[in-house]
Amino acid sequence: MSSEKNAPIGVFDSGVGGLTVVQEIMRNLPNEHIVYFGDTARVPYGSKSKETVLRYSRQIVRFLKTHKVKAIVVACNTASALALDIIAEEIDLPILGVVRPGASVAVQATHNKKVGVIATESTIHSNLYPLLIQREDPEITVYGKACPLFVPLIEEGWTKDYITVEVAKRYLEELLEKDIDTLIMGCTHYPLLKTLLKGILGAQVTLINPAYETSQVIKRMLEDLSLENDSYCSDGEKYQFYASDIVNKFNVFAHSILPYDIKIMKQILIEEY
Amino acid sequence: MSSEKNAPIGVFDSGVGGLTVVQEIMRNLPNEHIVYFGDTARVPYGSKSKETVLRYSRQIVRFLKTHKVKAIVVACNTASALALDIIAEEIDLPILGVVRPGASVAVQATHNKKVGVIATESTIHSNLYPLLIQREDPEITVYGKACPLFVPLIEEGWTKDYITVEVAKRYLEELLEKDIDTLIMGCTHYPLLKTLLKGILGAQVTLINPAYETSQVIKRMLEDLSLENDSYCSDGEKYQFYASDIVNKFNVFAHSILPYDIKIMKQILIEEY
Repeated sequence: MSSEKNAPIGVFDSGVGGLTVVQEIMRNLPNEHIVYFGDTARVPYGSKSKETVLRYSRQIVRFLKTHKVKAIVVACNTASALALDIIAEEIDLPILGVVRPGASVAVQATHNKKVGVIATESTIHSNLYPLLIQREDPEITVYGKACPLFVPLIEEGWTKDYITVEVAKRYLEELLEKDIDTLIMGCTHYPLLKTLLKGILGAQVTLINPAYETSQVIKRMLEDLSLENDSYCSDGEKYQFYASDIVNKFNVFAHSILPYDIKIMKQILIEEY
Repeated sequence: MSSEKNAPIGVFDSGVGGLTVVQEIMRNLPNEHIVYFGDTARVPYGSKSKETVLRYSRQIVRFLKTHKVKAIVVACNTASALALDIIAEEIDLPILGVVRPGASVAVQATHNKKVGVIATESTIHSNLYPLLIQREDPEITVYGKACPLFVPLIEEGWTKDYITVEVAKRYLEELLEKDIDTLIMGCTHYPLLKTLLKGILGAQVTLINPAYETSQVIKRMLEDLSLENDSYCSDGEKYQFYASDIVNKFNVFAHSILPYDIKIMKQILIEEY
C-alpha cells in the first residue's frame, strides 16, 4: 500500500485558475505530491458546452492516470459542474471537484437561507450549486449570476481597479437586492477579487472560497482511505506542472500565487490522450 | 474549370468573430458560396502561442479542403498573424488573411504617418501589422495595443456601455497621446465597437475595418484567377456553417449580424483532421 500512499494527487483546471486550489493543497497537505494539468490551449471552459467540457475532462483524466495518481481533484468549477459526476462513474479512483465542498460550506454558513453563487455561464447554466445546496437544505434559496468579465479583468491585472468595481457592482446588484448573506466564489479565479468583492458586499455577507474547502475535504478523504503520503521529499521534487500550451501568463500567474517556483513545467498534446 | 469556379470559399475563425468577414463577403460577392468554420471549442486564439494556433489552423485547413474549397480566407487576425505565412507555403490553394488587407489600407489612409493597431495579445506580440505596414512605407510609425477585454465586453453585449467606454479610453489613451490619425481594428469582433471607438477617437482618426478590405481583396483575387462563381443558387444553399462546439452564442451572434438565418450548422470534431 505504501507505493499508492506516496503517489501524487492529480489536479486539473481549464487553465491557471486551478492553481488557487493547488495553493491550498500545498498549505494544508504539505506532504502530498501534486501533478497539475492546465488546459491552456483550450481555455476557457466556462463558455463551452457540457459535451465539449466532458470530452476534454476525460482526456485529462487519462493523462493524469499515466502519472499513477492516487486521487484526482477537478480544480475547475465548470468541469466539476459539467463533467465530474459522469467521470466519477467511469474511473476506479477517488475523484472530487470544487462544487460540492463549496456548496456544503455555504449551507453551514447561511443564516437567512439566501445564498448567492457567482461563476461562469456554463456553471450557472448547469444549476449544480442550487441542486446540491437544496439537497442538503431545501429551505435555502440560491441565486446564481454568471460573471464572464471577471476572469479577463483578473488576467488584465485589474483586481483593484475602479472599472472592476463598476463591473462587480453591476453583477452583484441583483444578488444584493435578494438580501443574500452568503456568496460562493464559484470560479477558481474569483478569490483574487476577494478584497474588492468584500468592499461591495459589506461585512454582513460571508464569502465562500471552495478552493480552501476542497483542500479540507481531500485531507479527510485521504485519511479515511489511509492514503496520506508519509514519505519525505524536497519541495522541488514534489510538484509537477503540465499544460497544453506554453504561455508566459501561466508562469506569471503561478509565480504570483504559489509559494514555490515552478521547476518542472512541460507541454503535452492533450488531444492525444 | 467551371466546377472549380463554383466551389465554395472556405472561411475560418477562432469562433464567431469571423462572421463579420462572412458578412462582407455576402455583401460584396453575392454569388459566392461559403463554408465557414468557427473553432468554438477552443476559442479564443488571441492569448495562445504561435505553435498552438498553427496546429489548430492546419487542422481547420484540412477540414475545409474536404469541402473542395477553391480558396481559403483566414478571418481571424490572430491566425492570420501567427499561422498564415507558414500554411500558405504548405498548400496548393489561394489563401489570404485579414492582416495584409488591413495593413495596406492603413498605409493609404494615414497622412501624418502614425498608425495605431488594436488587437489581441498574440497579434500585437507577432508584430506583423508593423512589419507589413513598414514594408510598404518605412516612414510610418505603428503603435500597437492589446485590448483583451474588448471581446468579452462585446460578448456580454455591452457595446454602448459606459464601462466599455472607460475601458476603451484607457486602452486608447497611449495611442491618442502618440497623435495617430489611423486606427486598425485588428480583431474581427472590434467593428462592433465602431461607434463607441469613434466617439472616443473623434473625427480626425480614420478607423480601418480589415473585414471590408479583405472582401475587396478576395474579389480582385478571384477575378485575377478567373475563379468567380457564375452559377445561380438560392441563399439557403449557398452558406454552410460548422463549429467545433455547438453553443447558443454562435447562433445569437450570427443572427445579429448576418442578413440570412443560418440553416445548416453542424458540429465537427476538429482535432480529428
